Amino acid sequence: MSRAWGANGVPALSSGARPDEVRRHNRAALLRRLHVAGPCTRATLAAELGLNRSTIKAVVDGLAESGVVTEAVPVQRSGAGRPSLMVIPDPEAAAVLAVDIRVEQVAMALVGIGGQILGRHSWNLHRATRTPGEVITHIAESAQLLVEEVAVPARGVGVSVPGVVRRADGWVHEAPNLGWRDVALGERLGAVLKLPVQVANDAELGALAEHVRGNARELTDIVYISAERGVGGGVISGGAPLRGTRGYVGELGHIPVRPDGRPCYCGSRGCWETEVGEAALCRALGLPESSARGVIVAELRSLAANPMPGPLDEYVEWLIAGLVGVVNMMAPEMVVLGDLFTALPGPVVDHVRRQVHERSLVSRAIGGTRIEISPLGRDAKLVGAAELAFEPVLGAV
Amino acid sequence: MSRAWGANGVPALSSGARPDEVRRHNRAALLRRLHVAGPCTRATLAAELGLNRSTIKAVVDGLAESGVVTEAVPVQRSGAGRPSLMVIPDPEAAAVLAVDIRVEQVAMALVGIGGQILGRHSWNLHRATRTPGEVITHIAESAQLLVEEVAVPARGVGVSVPGVVRRADGWVHEAPNLGWRDVALGERLGAVLKLPVQVANDAELGALAEHVRGNARELTDIVYISAERGVGGGVISGGAPLRGTRGYVGELGHIPVRPDGRPCYCGSRGCWETEVGEAALCRALGLPESSARGVIVAELRSLAANPMPGPLDEYVEWLIAGLVGVVNMMAPEMVVLGDLFTALPGPVVDHVRRQVHERSLVSRAIGGTRIEISPLGRDAKLVGAAELAFEPVLGAV
Repeated sequence: MSRAWGANGVPALSSGARPDEVRRHNRAALLRRLHVAGPCTRATLAAELGLNRSTIKAVVDGLAESGVVTEAVPVQRSGAGRPSLMVIPDPEAAAVLAVDIRVEQVAMALVGIGGQILGRHSWNLHRATRTPGEVITHIAESAQLLVEEVAVPARGVGVSVPGVVRRADGWVHEAPNLGWRDVALGERLGAVLKLPVQVANDAELGALAEHVRGNARELTDIVYISAERGVGGGVISGGAPLRGTRGYVGELGHIPVRPDGRPCYCGSRGCWETEVGEAALCRALGLPESSARGVIVAELRSLAANPMPGPLDEYVEWLIAGLVGVVNMMAPEMVVLGDLFTALPGPVVDHVRRQVHERSLVSRAIGGTRIEISPLGRDAKLVGAAELAFEPVLGAV
Repeated sequence: MSRAWGANGVPALSSGARPDEVRRHNRAALLRRLHVAGPCTRATLAAELGLNRSTIKAVVDGLAESGVVTEAVPVQRSGAGRPSLMVIPDPEAAAVLAVDIRVEQVAMALVGIGGQILGRHSWNLHRATRTPGEVITHIAESAQLLVEEVAVPARGVGVSVPGVVRRADGWVHEAPNLGWRDVALGERLGAVLKLPVQVANDAELGALAEHVRGNARELTDIVYISAERGVGGGVISGGAPLRGTRGYVGELGHIPVRPDGRPCYCGSRGCWETEVGEAALCRALGLPESSARGVIVAELRSLAANPMPGPLDEYVEWLIAGLVGVVNMMAPEMVVLGDLFTALPGPVVDHVRRQVHERSLVSRAIGGTRIEISPLGRDAKLVGAAELAFEPVLGAV
């Protein structure tokens, strides 16, 4: 993955390389712009990519000939003169498979250029169907069905896994909540799907999704935190994903927040995950720990209009503690709360915002870290997996 | 500061630029290699910089003419043939002023190429002399004295401050343990010293020093943590300093580790700093909180050969908690413990190493984060300040 993500990920080339390289490069840059930011006029493309109109015309004509884009005359609102043609990518011209492997469910989608979901498929996991072999077989079958249903072939695959993943070859070192360890997921999926497969940590893909298609599109320093069974976090720093030794990303769910908290499978106790994950939220709400998502969300909705102080007080305290740590360590412009956190009542989120700001030296120094609810909700990791798959594909359409 | 630090910070150019640019670039790259890694043969320079021997000869001859390097025939150990000449930088050919502003002391040094300290000066601070105006005046006087004493002019200044600093102009947003807020330190020092001044956070400079001259020279992902009055941390990720929004670095000393800990001036309580800073160590040792450094170190030395379990148990627990958080978040190859932490008894450090590994999922995933005592000790930030000042200087010698 390149260091830079988003609309400006691939700067246009205009000189200094061979003509065919320049053409390919400009084509990919233009397609990436359309993919990320949607249809726009030739004039806008020229301005944003820093290319002259004749170059834009040549690239667009080429893409139109291959059926990747169409052009249309926009409805004119004002002014005289010939309107600039709108360039509209065809979602079906190039699609990828996105796979979000969660603890209780696998969600898949066939996603077209521009991020449009062309088809979806999902199934629940339980103990017997959660093995790597079963999951891989089911993914292969569903991929076949999806592609037949939509009648658009996939050109690549992106997979989100809640665990520690080696990006180079999609090796899953450990996905504790799935019970997986040392799974050659990238290689095995590639063998059955006969497509290039990329695998990444779920929270990292959540951060990518928020950066490309969420509220954090214009920002370079963000943290995405989400809870389902586990708690994970992805960091984008200076516009690029933060990675550590040999490309492994950190595990924000395992920062210690509560010294007398519950033992965690990781060998520590009172991890952020044990204190603010799904089970902890169930305990706070007086629900059984394995309650269905719908039950948890309904219970949150049934709370008083302003439930603080109330049953969530202690839960929220651990959420704040972890957020203060993350903000003080990373100095992000925005923290995006994803997945289960999106169901937290508004007044609770407001309380969290105020407290994190009051208790974080760094938030005050940088003029305030914004804390926002993910607009992508449960789809964030699926959207991120699609973007992961699109990165090499857009250069080759 | 460039994204890449260390010996390979400036790759050699051999084509594609104007001849005078190429010469200047190669000269800076060669000088940086000598500065960071010390004297070496022309053959080594050629191999490491990827330049042919005639180019190396031209650059070295130019530097020798200006007196920046000398050449010598090395003592020959084996083999026949003419030996490659050793190229030795002259420390006095270009020097910088390094300033380490600490809570109780300011340390200054005039540092030559290669990192050699040519002269030193320091003075203690107390309430009346800790104001920005007093400190700036004293720095200017000491700079004058140092330069006269050593008879080598300074070409730039690097300053380490224990606080939140805006790198672009050396604005100190807040240095709480100094009692400073909104100080235009870079501008004011530049005006009195008539030299380019760069200011950075102390922990960031500690990380830079360990990366350029400490144990972490070959590593790309490291965290430096140090304690004096406050606790600070600097992160190098992918070979470059980790910064957040608008270049501000995080404040690792303010991650919450102990929910029932002491209130911190930052608005939170039980910060890493309040639990493992100098005052906390004094409390653990049964000393008054404002004990002199020498008294603290003597007390640590007087502990039993293996003082765990013992008086440090609880202190060490908070040290471990913070380290587990940092390792899980950043996935570093090495954590370097600096300053006051270097006085911790060996068995205590061994215990910390084992516990962090056992309690950190990420340490295990990446094959073990090394936890090391800083070889630079109390000088780390001063060394880092010199490197900060050298960065622009080496390109202009």
